[in-house]
Amino acid sequence: MKTVDLLIKNGIVITMEGPGTGIINDGSVAIEGGKIVAVGETAEVCREYDGHRVIDARNKVVMPGFIDCHAHSCDAIVRGLAQDVDNWLYKAIWPITSNLNPDDIQVGSLLHIAESVLNGTTTICDMVYNADIIVKNHLKIGNRVILTEMIHENPSDIFRYDPMDVYPFDHSVGEGKFARCRKLVEQYQGYSDDLVTVMVGPQAINMVSLELMDELHHYAVSNDLHIHIHVSQSDRENVQVEKRYGKRAVPLLNDRGYLGRHVMAAHISHATRPEVKMMADSGARMILCSNSIAIINGVLPPAAEYLEYGGTVGLGTDQAPGNNRNNMFSEMKSSAVLNKYKLHSGTAFPAWKLLRMATIEAAKTVGLDSIIGSLRPGKKADIIIVDMTRPELSPLYLEPIRNVVPNLVYAADGSEVETVIVDGRIIVEERKLLHADLALLVNEANRHASEISKRLSAFDGLGNLPVAKFTAEGLY
Amino acid sequence: MKTVDLLIKNGIVITMEGPGTGIINDGSVAIEGGKIVAVGETAEVCREYDGHRVIDARNKVVMPGFIDCHAHSCDAIVRGLAQDVDNWLYKAIWPITSNLNPDDIQVGSLLHIAESVLNGTTTICDMVYNADIIVKNHLKIGNRVILTEMIHENPSDIFRYDPMDVYPFDHSVGEGKFARCRKLVEQYQGYSDDLVTVMVGPQAINMVSLELMDELHHYAVSNDLHIHIHVSQSDRENVQVEKRYGKRAVPLLNDRGYLGRHVMAAHISHATRPEVKMMADSGARMILCSNSIAIINGVLPPAAEYLEYGGTVGLGTDQAPGNNRNNMFSEMKSSAVLNKYKLHSGTAFPAWKLLRMATIEAAKTVGLDSIIGSLRPGKKADIIIVDMTRPELSPLYLEPIRNVVPNLVYAADGSEVETVIVDGRIIVEERKLLHADLALLVNEANRHASEISKRLSAFDGLGNLPVAKFTAEGLY
Repeated sequence: MKTVDLLIKNGIVITMEGPGTGIINDGSVAIEGGKIVAVGETAEVCREYDGHRVIDARNKVVMPGFIDCHAHSCDAIVRGLAQDVDNWLYKAIWPITSNLNPDDIQVGSLLHIAESVLNGTTTICDMVYNADIIVKNHLKIGNRVILTEMIHENPSDIFRYDPMDVYPFDHSVGEGKFARCRKLVEQYQGYSDDLVTVMVGPQAINMVSLELMDELHHYAVSNDLHIHIHVSQSDRENVQVEKRYGKRAVPLLNDRGYLGRHVMAAHISHATRPEVKMMADSGARMILCSNSIAIINGVLPPAAEYLEYGGTVGLGTDQAPGNNRNNMFSEMKSSAVLNKYKLHSGTAFPAWKLLRMATIEAAKTVGLDSIIGSLRPGKKADIIIVDMTRPELSPLYLEPIRNVVPNLVYAADGSEVETVIVDGRIIVEERKLLHADLALLVNEANRHASEISKRLSAFDGLGNLPVAKFTAEGLY
Repeated sequence: MKTVDLLIKNGIVITMEGPGTGIINDGSVAIEGGKIVAVGETAEVCREYDGHRVIDARNKVVMPGFIDCHAHSCDAIVRGLAQDVDNWLYKAIWPITSNLNPDDIQVGSLLHIAESVLNGTTTICDMVYNADIIVKNHLKIGNRVILTEMIHENPSDIFRYDPMDVYPFDHSVGEGKFARCRKLVEQYQGYSDDLVTVMVGPQAINMVSLELMDELHHYAVSNDLHIHIHVSQSDRENVQVEKRYGKRAVPLLNDRGYLGRHVMAAHISHATRPEVKMMADSGARMILCSNSIAIINGVLPPAAEYLEYGGTVGLGTDQAPGNNRNNMFSEMKSSAVLNKYKLHSGTAFPAWKLLRMATIEAAKTVGLDSIIGSLRPGKKADIIIVDMTRPELSPLYLEPIRNVVPNLVYAADGSEVETVIVDGRIIVEERKLLHADLALLVNEANRHASEISKRLSAFDGLGNLPVAKFTAEGLY
């Protein structure tokens, strides 16, 4: 009998190993030094292992934490200020965020991370401005993070341009952000045994010059880093690059050799079918942000087609202003429901596939499937424990028929997550963050919101903000 | 100064009066004898009223409880056993529920009601078998209920027929259920000052004979009762009635004079555009169950068209097996997201419209807008209080721009509901049911699930159940 750091026993263990969900009705997981050392039937695991600490997971699900493949925690401070709009980027989010300072962004980001982790996300793929500041938020809460400094060469008043027009690139902005990216890589790539991973992040091919894109691509490839980029996220993007270079976004990326297995592409929402195939064929992975893109654009990204072409798809929550939450349970359900509707089929996008797209397929999407995304000896212990005695998850059927996976995907909302473990370390217990005072974070965010409100009152673009109109008309 | 039973003060009060949301940044509500006596700015209300009990709702939303226009609490005991399927009714829910007894149904129904109420629903439009038993569940939890005994003339082995074929009606079944309905009306219509309302419930026009439908229609009209019916809920329904009577469902209902202002129609999901107009023109109200119909059929019901034709639309959650939850927050978000996608527009189905469809428009849908659905002096005090300091609802902006309504619709999941008041009586406090022991309900449901599992093991149709296959293949 070996005594490990942590033994989770008697749970409904969903390993996400194999082609399905790898579920075990009565399973246990042994954890030592941040890694899983054993997972299997309780009778077998407990014959070999005891724990310095033991968690009894009877009537609870024990499963890999979610991997949110695409988030912008830097925007969370303006949650709820940008939705129900036409041209979200130019008319809502950019003019609003032009009123933010780095402190606002840092405080909002903490809230985003807190929400995400409390609802079962253990790895956040966070694409932000000021990544050197934001990384400290993730380290504070204790989750795993894949961090990307968002790099563009946009002028600061970009939202004052016609969205369908090209604008002059500001190369000094791009160089500054790229320098930040390189510094981040030097300081944090692989930090704390892969608790932090860094990616290279051109915001989109219409927002960086080809010269800078060449540099970023070369830097990523020569340093074995992945690229996290928005691809064909709007008609605007395609029109702008066509005006600049005579090609739409995906063919441009392809022709210049930017695509490939090292690319993780968000949205691809405005790509044609051949463009989707071109992306999938290149080995690039796709991130599906169903709630965000439906709310922002009224569009469902082509995940069904991407899968049809043999591509890999992971789920992401995107940003708080325009989702408006960062909860992978909500993404699983919305992604299922939207795709069933799109494909006119109740059997399309079944529950187990969604659970995979939030865990093991997401791990493949972010390129970390060798260390996270499923429960297997040798992998990192990134685990959540979910209370299955909540009314919306009850009753529980285990055999001869089981309702665990469909209830997790279609019925759970995240408030059922009791315990969150990252790298073998418990960071949420009894639904409380262990390394941050949530009430304090919320107070602090509210204080910043008051200051931002004052700034917005003096902002010359206030009257044009859709949220200002909705407020004035008594609708919001 | 008058002292009322209950004074809720300092809240963000969303009255749902007027054409928008009628929101007040700092508002109060005075309640006496189960009714609202005053609602308005805190300064004004508190000048006139004090309370025997006072709730300080600072940083909380005070709003009308949700009205779930269409639910089948009788099915909740088999939550999670029927989804991701083709022909949900014949291949999943009917064969499974053929194994249930009235006790199973009663126990599951309590769980459904508990979940619903804990997530902010104060009125449930419950269409069930054994309504005389189910009504006691609602009275126990303390919510308002609009109850319908589901009336059909189906043979007990209906799921063994070809779905596209007609089957022989069993008139004795229909007569028995109609008798139950009449008894329910006599005993409960208007019970406890409208805490219970009864409707007449032909399950669908393909499931009752025209003779019985005539009787039901006549009974409803002469007793001033509303009719709650599924309309054009599948191709199957249209094919069956065409085979029987040479007409599709909606024209048949119309030609025989069954439509009108007293009709509340669920789904209409398989109606043509002219049929949708026919329904709307008749004054019938439509119930939109977005999650349920997308999951069951891969279809989005024509709410956009119904509204375009001037019809009234309220939201409903339908049943636990095939949604799989009964949470109006989830319905608001999914309905917005699905319709934005359908209409290819980020501005379609904005947050405030969804909030209306879950409250005041829902009240119109169920015909009780004179007493519930908004906060107005004289209306029933059916009120929920929502904590706006939760991370997913933070930060809070009130002026010059406000994010309250979009965050309620797109970010809240229901776990933020702290207090639920029905008829002026607090039935949920600090997220706890006051009139039922939730842990006991869940245990009881799990005990029944074990028994049902045993029965299903011996059921000759087990092997054909999709859930059995998903389980055997390690997917669920």
